[in-house]
Parts: sequence; structure tokens; C-alpha cells
Amino acid sequence: MAALEKGLAVIECFDAAHDKLTIAEVARATELSRAAARRCLLTLTRIGYAEFDGKFFRLTPRVLRLGHAWLASSALPQMVQPFLERLSEETHESSSASLLDGHEIVYIARSQQRRIMSVGLSVGTRLPAFCTSMGRVLLAALPPDEARRRILTGQPRMRTAQTVVDVDRLMTLLAKVRGQGYAIVDQELELGLVSIAVPLINPRNEVVAAFNLSGQVQRTSAQDIAAQFLPRMQAMQTMLRPLIK
Amino acid sequence: MAALEKGLAVIECFDAAHDKLTIAEVARATELSRAAARRCLLTLTRIGYAEFDGKFFRLTPRVLRLGHAWLASSALPQMVQPFLERLSEETHESSSASLLDGHEIVYIARSQQRRIMSVGLSVGTRLPAFCTSMGRVLLAALPPDEARRRILTGQPRMRTAQTVVDVDRLMTLLAKVRGQGYAIVDQELELGLVSIAVPLINPRNEVVAAFNLSGQVQRTSAQDIAAQFLPRMQAMQTMLRPLIK
Repeated sequence: MAALEKGLAVIECFDAAHDKLTIAEVARATELSRAAARRCLLTLTRIGYAEFDGKFFRLTPRVLRLGHAWLASSALPQMVQPFLERLSEETHESSSASLLDGHEIVYIARSQQRRIMSVGLSVGTRLPAFCTSMGRVLLAALPPDEARRRILTGQPRMRTAQTVVDVDRLMTLLAKVRGQGYAIVDQELELGLVSIAVPLINPRNEVVAAFNLSGQVQRTSAQDIAAQFLPRMQAMQTMLRPLIK
Repeated sequence: MAALEKGLAVIECFDAAHDKLTIAEVARATELSRAAARRCLLTLTRIGYAEFDGKFFRLTPRVLRLGHAWLASSALPQMVQPFLERLSEETHESSSASLLDGHEIVYIARSQQRRIMSVGLSVGTRLPAFCTSMGRVLLAALPPDEARRRILTGQPRMRTAQTVVDVDRLMTLLAKVRGQGYAIVDQELELGLVSIAVPLINPRNEVVAAFNLSGQVQRTSAQDIAAQFLPRMQAMQTMLRPLIK
């Protein structure tokens, strides 16, 4: 494992539940030796990506430069953002776009109407693909064996009583999504949350990302969501298609 | 220079104007040897942070994990975001929060009403501190010598005909900002753009960040912006104060 790989693993082990970590905790989370974890943390501190208060290490906002390097260099988030804003304004619901990374989706753009989820979502947020509408759209675009492999890697677990975790049932759902061209997820990620997603397709017919609308079940039921939003989302899909590389 | 430091410098050299780079270009931008640049790029590619098409390297969205590690682990963006959204909704203008990093500000939260700048702003975006309202609020909170040093490090350059670049004039402006507790910047960053910022202050009276409202000069002139927005912003400053660590 190269020093660079170790250092990036150290950065990634900080999150909302682990905002300050000791050397021992970083070693445990990354499976590095304590000496290696210590070396990475001291290098990160010296070059301004972390700070140390004598006991705990924390990341500094300088780390944002790294994520921003991709956001700034990729055309997709910039291109999609105004479309999401329009969609979100017209529907009064939150709209997001994401990519698949392993068994997770990663948000690349978002337009929020009101805070409806218990967890704040922002660009860079990761959620499991198997139980999200965008994740299902993106998994459905993969060869079935690959989709199955990724679902299993993520070790699906129940998030609500409605979460489908059985991989065979999930594969059946993906086949349906592939056929109909969109996915609806009804409170499988969080109680009260309904979401509909369609793929972003490039002129070579490749699925490069997905975008969604999500709302509260009290306002929009899973039965109504397609009738209410799908035509508008498909129109946007068509508008975006020639613009995507 | 440690391998980790080199690798992070390589990631940072990608941006909107440099979305795909050759080994030679990365070596030039980072001042690394070609061999070192090549080694970093190959490691980044092997572990999934970059991809190579035979000629050019690009970052992958996996890089977002790094920036997101800070966003998720820092309480400030999560705490400020709903306040910015309310402010933005009430005023119909865009609102942002940022921190100072060297001679630049870095956006940590943002609520956008409409796209008013030619450049899209998002969390992680960096702008020069000397010609932005949030930057002036943050520079004004530093000891004057330190503020002067940072301004000079950034090599201020004119962005519009109105940009103040003379460091002595800037120091006079900072003294005024310190006295009045807010900064207004009138089309010094971009023509047509007016912005007002106040500091976010913790219970120990330390300035930890700044937040702003920005609008188009046709709708809100620099003369009117304080009367229109400042009371609301100061009320928010007071509400946030006891919540900030």
C-alpha cells in the first residue's frame, strides 16, 4: 500500500460520527499500523489538511480543495445544476443527481426545496445504491451479474420495515426498472420519504448518472409520484441527452 | 516532500480549466519531477481516484469522498445551512458561508436563489479574500500585519474597474469593516454583483466564519443593501452565536 493510498484512507475515515480521532482510532478504522497512521496524520497536519489538539486530530477545510478539484473539473455537475433547480422550483420538491461508485451513490448536484430528510444531503454525500431510486436506476444499467455483485458487497441492511434487502427480489426490481426506464422507492431509505429517479443518458445510449425528485409521502404518495413528475423528468432527460459527453 | 503531500498536490492541480492533464502538465503544475508526477497519477488511478485514457488523466467522483470527509465531520456547515436557507428565502437573494484559508475564502455552505454570477459557486469554491465581502470580514478579524501579509501573498489583481488592489487602501477598508461589523463589496469581484457579509462569532468572541447575501446591483444597490438586509443578518448572527463552538 503506497503512502498516498494510506493518507487518503486516513482522510476518508473522518465523518459525522468521527469528527475527531486519536492515532489509535485512525489505525483501527483504516487497518493501518499505529506507526503508519501516526505518520499520515502528522504529514496531513504539517501540510494543513488536519490539526492536532494534543489528543485528537481533526480535518481542516483545506480538505475541501480535494473534492472541489473533481467538481470543478467535471462538466456534469455544472451542467445538471440549473436543470435540477428548475425541476425543483416547478415541483416544489428537492431534486438531486448522482453517480454510482461501487455499491454507493454519490451526490454530484442538488437543489433543495425544504429539509425533508433527517440527514442533511449535500454534494459528496453517499448513500447505499440498493435502497435509493437513483441507485436502482444506476444498478439497473449494469450487467445483472455486476449489479448483484455490487449489491452483495454493500451488505444490504433494513433501513425501515419496507426496505427490500433480499438480493433476488432486488434483481427482479432492477429488471422492472430497466424495462420501464425509471425507479420509485417508497420509504425504503427513510420513513416518510418517497423518491422517483430516471437515468441521464448520453448520445451513445450510455447511462452516465441519474437524477431524482423526492418528497414526503403525506404530500405525494408512491402511487401518484410517477403521474405527477415523470413526464417533466423525461422531458428534462431528453433535453439533457445531447449535452452529455 | 512526502509521497502523500505530492499526491494531494496532484489532485489539487485539476480544476475547471484543467479537467484532463498529461503527466508532463501535472509535473509542470505541481513542480514535481515527471517520474514523481507519473508515480502519483498511476497510484491514484490504481486506487480509483483518477482514470487514464491512454493520454490524459482525469479525476473520478471518488475524490468527492475526501472533501465530504470534512463536510461530514465539521458541525459548522450543517448548522449554518438551514439559517442560510431561511435568509435566502426571506430575501430572495443567495446566501453563503465561508472560512478563510490562507488568502482565499472557501465556501462551506450555500443557498442559491438564482444564478447571478457568471461562475457557478458551490461548497468548496475558493475566491480571493481581498475583493469579497466575506473575505474582508474575515481578514478584518486578523491582526492587521497578518491580514496585510495574506493580502500580499495572494497578489491582488483587478477583477473589474472597481476592484481595490492597493494594500494600504485595503487596510483602511478593513479597519472600517472592523469598526462597523460588516463589509459591503460593490462590483469588485464581478460587474453587477453586490454583496454584504457579517462575521459568525462564537461565545468566546472569536470570528470563526462569515456569511453573506449577494444580489444584482440593478435590484439592490450598494447604498441600499445594508438598510435592506443588515438587521436580518445581525439577528441571525445573534441566534447563531450560542450554537457555535
